[in-house]
Amino acid sequence: MKKQEKSNSRLKIIPLGGLEQIGMNITAFEYEDSIIVVDCGLAFPEDDMYGIDLVIPDVTYLKDNIDKVKGFFITHGHEDHIGAIPYVLRDINVPIYATKLTTAIIEHKLEEHDMLKKTKRKVVKYGQHINLGCFRVEFIRTNHSIQDAAALAIYSPAGIVVHTGDFKVDYTPVFGDAIDLQRFGEIGKKGVLALLCDSTNAERPGFTNSERSVGKTLDNIFSEHKNTRIIIATFASNVDRVQQIINSADKFGRKVAIEGRSMVNIISIASQLGYLSLPDNILIDVDQLKSYPDEKTVIITTGSQGESMAALSRMATGMHRKVSIKPTDTIVFSSHPIPGNEKSVTGVINELMRKGADVIFEDVHVSGHACQEDIKLIYSLVNPKYAVPVHGEYKHLVAQAKIAEELGYDTEHIKILSSGEVLEIDEDGAEITGHVPVGNIMVDGLGVGDVGNIVLRDRQRLAEDGIIIVVMTLEAGSGQVLAGPDIVSRGFVYVRNSESLMDEAKTVLENTMDYCMDHGITDWGKIKNEVKDALGDFVWKETKRRPMIMPIIMEV
Amino acid sequence: MKKQEKSNSRLKIIPLGGLEQIGMNITAFEYEDSIIVVDCGLAFPEDDMYGIDLVIPDVTYLKDNIDKVKGFFITHGHEDHIGAIPYVLRDINVPIYATKLTTAIIEHKLEEHDMLKKTKRKVVKYGQHINLGCFRVEFIRTNHSIQDAAALAIYSPAGIVVHTGDFKVDYTPVFGDAIDLQRFGEIGKKGVLALLCDSTNAERPGFTNSERSVGKTLDNIFSEHKNTRIIIATFASNVDRVQQIINSADKFGRKVAIEGRSMVNIISIASQLGYLSLPDNILIDVDQLKSYPDEKTVIITTGSQGESMAALSRMATGMHRKVSIKPTDTIVFSSHPIPGNEKSVTGVINELMRKGADVIFEDVHVSGHACQEDIKLIYSLVNPKYAVPVHGEYKHLVAQAKIAEELGYDTEHIKILSSGEVLEIDEDGAEITGHVPVGNIMVDGLGVGDVGNIVLRDRQRLAEDGIIIVVMTLEAGSGQVLAGPDIVSRGFVYVRNSESLMDEAKTVLENTMDYCMDHGITDWGKIKNEVKDALGDFVWKETKRRPMIMPIIMEV
Repeated sequence: MKKQEKSNSRLKIIPLGGLEQIGMNITAFEYEDSIIVVDCGLAFPEDDMYGIDLVIPDVTYLKDNIDKVKGFFITHGHEDHIGAIPYVLRDINVPIYATKLTTAIIEHKLEEHDMLKKTKRKVVKYGQHINLGCFRVEFIRTNHSIQDAAALAIYSPAGIVVHTGDFKVDYTPVFGDAIDLQRFGEIGKKGVLALLCDSTNAERPGFTNSERSVGKTLDNIFSEHKNTRIIIATFASNVDRVQQIINSADKFGRKVAIEGRSMVNIISIASQLGYLSLPDNILIDVDQLKSYPDEKTVIITTGSQGESMAALSRMATGMHRKVSIKPTDTIVFSSHPIPGNEKSVTGVINELMRKGADVIFEDVHVSGHACQEDIKLIYSLVNPKYAVPVHGEYKHLVAQAKIAEELGYDTEHIKILSSGEVLEIDEDGAEITGHVPVGNIMVDGLGVGDVGNIVLRDRQRLAEDGIIIVVMTLEAGSGQVLAGPDIVSRGFVYVRNSESLMDEAKTVLENTMDYCMDHGITDWGKIKNEVKDALGDFVWKETKRRPMIMPIIMEV
Repeated sequence: MKKQEKSNSRLKIIPLGGLEQIGMNITAFEYEDSIIVVDCGLAFPEDDMYGIDLVIPDVTYLKDNIDKVKGFFITHGHEDHIGAIPYVLRDINVPIYATKLTTAIIEHKLEEHDMLKKTKRKVVKYGQHINLGCFRVEFIRTNHSIQDAAALAIYSPAGIVVHTGDFKVDYTPVFGDAIDLQRFGEIGKKGVLALLCDSTNAERPGFTNSERSVGKTLDNIFSEHKNTRIIIATFASNVDRVQQIINSADKFGRKVAIEGRSMVNIISIASQLGYLSLPDNILIDVDQLKSYPDEKTVIITTGSQGESMAALSRMATGMHRKVSIKPTDTIVFSSHPIPGNEKSVTGVINELMRKGADVIFEDVHVSGHACQEDIKLIYSLVNPKYAVPVHGEYKHLVAQAKIAEELGYDTEHIKILSSGEVLEIDEDGAEITGHVPVGNIMVDGLGVGDVGNIVLRDRQRLAEDGIIIVVMTLEAGSGQVLAGPDIVSRGFVYVRNSESLMDEAKTVLENTMDYCMDHGITDWGKIKNEVKDALGDFVWKETKRRPMIMPIIMEV
């Protein structure tokens, strides 16, 4: 009983992201009868998740403790922090707390899922404190590659936890103020139990450059390419980047056309809310481009990650209905490939170059995440008792742990959590005491969670070697073959002379059916297994391939 | 007729690699009645080539001109330069000319394909000249990430062409001598018509470091990790790297175990031929590892590219039968991810770190390709009339073209060729005058070229959304439905209540069959189309998925 009491009086920190930590951010903070959740992100499918559109976290733990869950606190408006909201909030209908732009982006998403009216949203200002159950949560201004990002100071009876969200230190941000380092210091002075700090760039030495430095690079590009059309691809959600492109365009007397659905959406939201300032009449429709000389226009477009359906990729392959790449175009990737996208990005660059365009794809970007020295700065200000690296792949968490070690933390005070692990923590100690169910829920079309590992394995096998279908009609009672066995295949080809392999396969099947008749095998399950084995062996021997073999029996 | 004569007296240079230039190197040089071919490589399949093992070039052009083809000249033993030999030489049985190690690696490959006896090989020494038809070919020593690499000076009646192959400039190679810069200069003095130069690193400024510099890094790692087992992953074919690991192991009193089939093969070939020098008794079998303390052993392994079936990946996932990763292990990636492999490499690093191992994955590698200043050096020595950038993605070719421009070449004297383009060249000029058939031939199991775009598209569709099979048995003559329609699916799942969707789908099918009966539709093709349309629409409406729908009709 003692242990139980003890346990109840400690703060629990539980990462609820998918099993393999493939990017979705969602962390539960639990103290006695209260749970609050920080972020609610989705992940994009891994290469072997055939046909899956996106992946969301399994929040069984929250559903099982639904009475405790008080609310979601969202640090910023990126998909890996907000994307699962429309799915998760269906079952866990508690309020969402976020800053103004973040809330607007969430609302746009909720509307698309017809969930806007059902979901409570509370817009929070930097410095504001929210009381929920045992917790008080304060929003602290940070900088990131999207505006209105916040760190959270979570005040619990067990102590204060600071969660940075994704952040960088930008002393000269394009919009709004620099990260509130004073407040980090002030809270640090009070005594902080644990710091959950962004690890994304923990492998990179030095400091992250200001977003404003990209503005200078853009000015140089505009200045050096005064006689060509300029097409610039960047992340739709990086409104500050778009602002700087527009500033350069304005300076050099160019009109700006926006291309790509997500880009148009975010720009419309940001300019309505005053996060983007547009010189009069600078925006034109893509259809109006032809009314201006090339050297008086800029196109800002999606597709900086080489996404095959994005606007820039369609331009590169000549599939875009309104923009054709010309040999005189200057095309700028104001971005860096996200790990895994390197090859698709390069593919688009190659295609654009083949069309003769001048492509600039390096050094027109800065990261939105803190590098090593920035991370050390935050540790110095917050001076937490425990370091809990978050956000990033496992190797990034390890890199931050090494930074913490350099700063003098011993391994007892550095906690790397795997998904589902329960970290119980207070002033007296921090231990991983248990594990809650977590996992990836795959979303495919309208289906949420109905595609599981068996279906994925089937898809993988179908993708590798295709399918051979064997159909036959048997006579009810006698089990005599009335029609077939017929063979149909898809995604599988016969080697050499396809006729002859087909004929031989039929002979194999007829022999198998004779064998079944002779041995009194009438059970359909057994017949199907005989067919699978015999045809599978034959096909492997002849082709060294293993298509899925699917016998279907009908009876008349 | 004048034009024809002119054309016949010029040299033709024709890259025959796959249509999208995905990596396979094979170039034909044609003069009047003679064709020689440089390299004969394969490519690994792109992500969307489901189930394909490897890709080889379509050499229809060579087959159509079989009487002209005199021989293959191979620059070095990497797969993208030799991998297609066992396939291409089946139809084009001419001699292969290569240096000693390259020949041995080719012979190993031919043996695996049972082609050794049927293929003529000629071992060539550096400085040796081969006369074939109108051509004379000289092998020139270069350096690369595999030993025995050669550049070729191709003497033709139209002039001299220098082909660098893949190369770097290494003044202090681990094995053998430095690149024969004198000979490049000497040939340059004679007057060179065209230089075909490696573009792989043309985007990288500066010089490529010597392979020997990695030896120092390895010594440092061994010195700093005296108390742990060391596991080092690198490219199997980089024998110099293996040599340096063995040197460090010897220096620090460790035994060496080799793991991974391709690594074992190459090391055996290289040490038999004297390209690898092994201190006595330094090699032990993986099974013997347990007889030595961890800190007295090194494992050299394949898997530096995160290949899922390679030894290191199996160790990382706990699937390796003989080596288990321990938290005390030091694991070194002596490699750099090849573009496209970044994510798998990172995945393996994350897994190894999760097991507690110390993973070193940066700066224990140098490239085997010339950087910008090295490329300029070769241009200065060879001083060709025409620059023809080769080897690399399109953007790399463009980067070399820019280097040539810096060196004073005008665009008329820089020729970037696409696959199949025929460059006709002599002292009077160089023009692209035509196009020969080229393409990717996909190899899947035993099948060479039997998987085409239709099969790939089927596999892609099966991978995305699976398949729904509809079977029914009709009465001959009447067309009455005797059994079915039955529905079976794979790789597709029903959303919500699967029973109810299944029932509704059956109703849709029954209505479709009633419609066919009522409208006198008895043609099986038409019935199948009706079934596809009706079921496809229904499934899309209910699930937003588009599985392949396959109606099968039997008759009794």
